[in-house]
Amino acid sequence: MKNYAIIVAGGVGRRMGSDTPKQFLKIGGQPILMHTITAFYQYDHKMEIVLVLPHSHFSQWTELSLMHDFDVPHCMVGGGSTRFHSVKNGLDSIGDEGTVAIHDGVRPLIEQEIIQNSFEVANTKGNAIVSVELKDSIRQLKGQRSNSVDRMAFRAIQTPQTFKVSDIKEAYRIEYQESLTDDASVAELAGQKINLIDGSYRNIKITTSEDLVIAEALLDNK
Amino acid sequence: MKNYAIIVAGGVGRRMGSDTPKQFLKIGGQPILMHTITAFYQYDHKMEIVLVLPHSHFSQWTELSLMHDFDVPHCMVGGGSTRFHSVKNGLDSIGDEGTVAIHDGVRPLIEQEIIQNSFEVANTKGNAIVSVELKDSIRQLKGQRSNSVDRMAFRAIQTPQTFKVSDIKEAYRIEYQESLTDDASVAELAGQKINLIDGSYRNIKITTSEDLVIAEALLDNK
Repeated sequence: MKNYAIIVAGGVGRRMGSDTPKQFLKIGGQPILMHTITAFYQYDHKMEIVLVLPHSHFSQWTELSLMHDFDVPHCMVGGGSTRFHSVKNGLDSIGDEGTVAIHDGVRPLIEQEIIQNSFEVANTKGNAIVSVELKDSIRQLKGQRSNSVDRMAFRAIQTPQTFKVSDIKEAYRIEYQESLTDDASVAELAGQKINLIDGSYRNIKITTSEDLVIAEALLDNK
Repeated sequence: MKNYAIIVAGGVGRRMGSDTPKQFLKIGGQPILMHTITAFYQYDHKMEIVLVLPHSHFSQWTELSLMHDFDVPHCMVGGGSTRFHSVKNGLDSIGDEGTVAIHDGVRPLIEQEIIQNSFEVANTKGNAIVSVELKDSIRQLKGQRSNSVDRMAFRAIQTPQTFKVSDIKEAYRIEYQESLTDDASVAELAGQKINLIDGSYRNIKITTSEDLVIAEALLDNK
């Protein structure tokens, strides 16, 4: 069974207060994205890894790869105007058979066991969506008011989100809608039953400068 | 106007894999709880600070205070069987006038501006509940299935949760229910309108050993 990973790295890092795209910032001396790509390569050396990057970042990535002697095989595909379009470009670039993990480029701390479990569950059930319980109480906004809701009835969704390739290609044929913030919501709209699997709180998405500090600390604390 | 802080520190740290109650574990060389208490003291040196601790932790806390020359004035009140009962014990120990911030003992990174804003908003509107936007997509569980929901319609609730003292004392006269996981939900059940104010992602609740690593890193990165 052919395994694919689509690593989505479309962000431009505006929230970081940095000119460097956030996925190129370093933790443990190496750009975030290299940690992410390596995690999937470690799980399966034969996996086909597709990195979806804005075209404007291609040359910077190539320079970084040279500078860091980064030799994990992968190919680059140009990103789209939204995450949806970026993932679609990634899917268009791969074959029609097998299993594909779609993963945020800025989640470099993903553990091997979670990658493995996501492929195993996707192979038997069609998909596997990594999620964790909410740590904080939550309130639902209703106009000017809000009301408390049971946080245990919700899960925070992470990546990887792993699918039978044919299923997720089929799902991505729909028109883009703003509500489609992740791949599970696309698959759900296509009528596919979503299977949640356990993630971990280490698997953070690096979006702010504080997240960078946190990721560095967690990396040291492996 | 008299200001109070009730610092709730009832936890026993089982999720930490440590025998030391989590609020006594150190970051920056000092027990977590001392950072938390100091944050409120810094905002208002005249504030009356009530620390709600299990009776069984009183002597350990006193020893730690001696060891660390911790001299921020505060009083200790015995905790109850749940957070609800602990807060109620704290409220029973304070006067009937003024404003009270109820805060998790294991949120030591609370910023001065947020404490200040919570008292100011509570003074004008009756209460102020610190909250942040959700970072991840969320799904709502429905039996064996789940569906995507708009994360922007929700807020993650932190502390402090700050109230006019008379209002929150009134609200806490109700019978305990398991759904009352925070003070906002108690006030809401009493018919009070909840005012959300902006928190920060630094203001983490330390509940796991990873959180301890994160808190240490954030503290260094002030």
